[in-house]
Amino acid sequence: MLNPKQMHAAVHEYVRALNAADLDAIVALFADDAVVEDPVGSEPRRGLAAIRDFYAASVAMKLVVALEGPVRAVANEAAFPFSVSLVFNGQPVVIRPIDHFRFNDAGRIVQMRAFFGS
Amino acid sequence: MLNPKQMHAAVHEYVRALNAADLDAIVALFADDAVVEDPVGSEPRRGLAAIRDFYAASVAMKLVVALEGPVRAVANEAAFPFSVSLVFNGQPVVIRPIDHFRFNDAGRIVQMRAFFGS
Repeated sequence: MLNPKQMHAAVHEYVRALNAADLDAIVALFADDAVVEDPVGSEPRRGLAAIRDFYAASVAMKLVVALEGPVRAVANEAAFPFSVSLVFNGQPVVIRPIDHFRFNDAGRIVQMRAFFGS
Repeated sequence: MLNPKQMHAAVHEYVRALNAADLDAIVALFADDAVVEDPVGSEPRRGLAAIRDFYAASVAMKLVVALEGPVRAVANEAAFPFSVSLVFNGQPVVIRPIDHFRFNDAGRIVQMRAFFGS
């Protein structure tokens, strides 16, 4: 079982790496067989190659990301609210997802799901 | 598939019913075979009898509950951050969970998981 501090560190590294457009650092947070469902309801991306492609598109959008509340971390799972600011078709857009991570005992993310508002 | 508005309404009714200590209204939100894992990592409560017992203990604590951000609702799932204020051993305590609901197509909650901070 992970220490919550390890999960807090992973979430903060995720936010840092997104803001820095540091694709290698983002991908390094995930296990080889990780699954990313972003947003929830979309076709999941499976494995690091698909996950790298997904985040390459994300960092190309120059996202500005900020936590909007405490990271909840327990029993190898974490959930946190955050804001994502970007420019889409010339217009500033802010989306406010809640992300849910599941970790393996090595501290890598094995499942990520992003709940978008509506 | 549910309309997000149905899930928003269910979450707001959940908050209202918790604040009103309206146990029947809380239980009415759940499907017969629903599973409640609150907090995540604890033994899940399965079925309406166990869920009623769980919320009877909750409402006895006179919880004051408030949403702390938008309800994210998509694809029969909802996630939302909120605060829960209570008095424990004479001391005021605030906990800030993120709850995750899965709904069936009838609009009842079939799974609830509460992520606590730490």
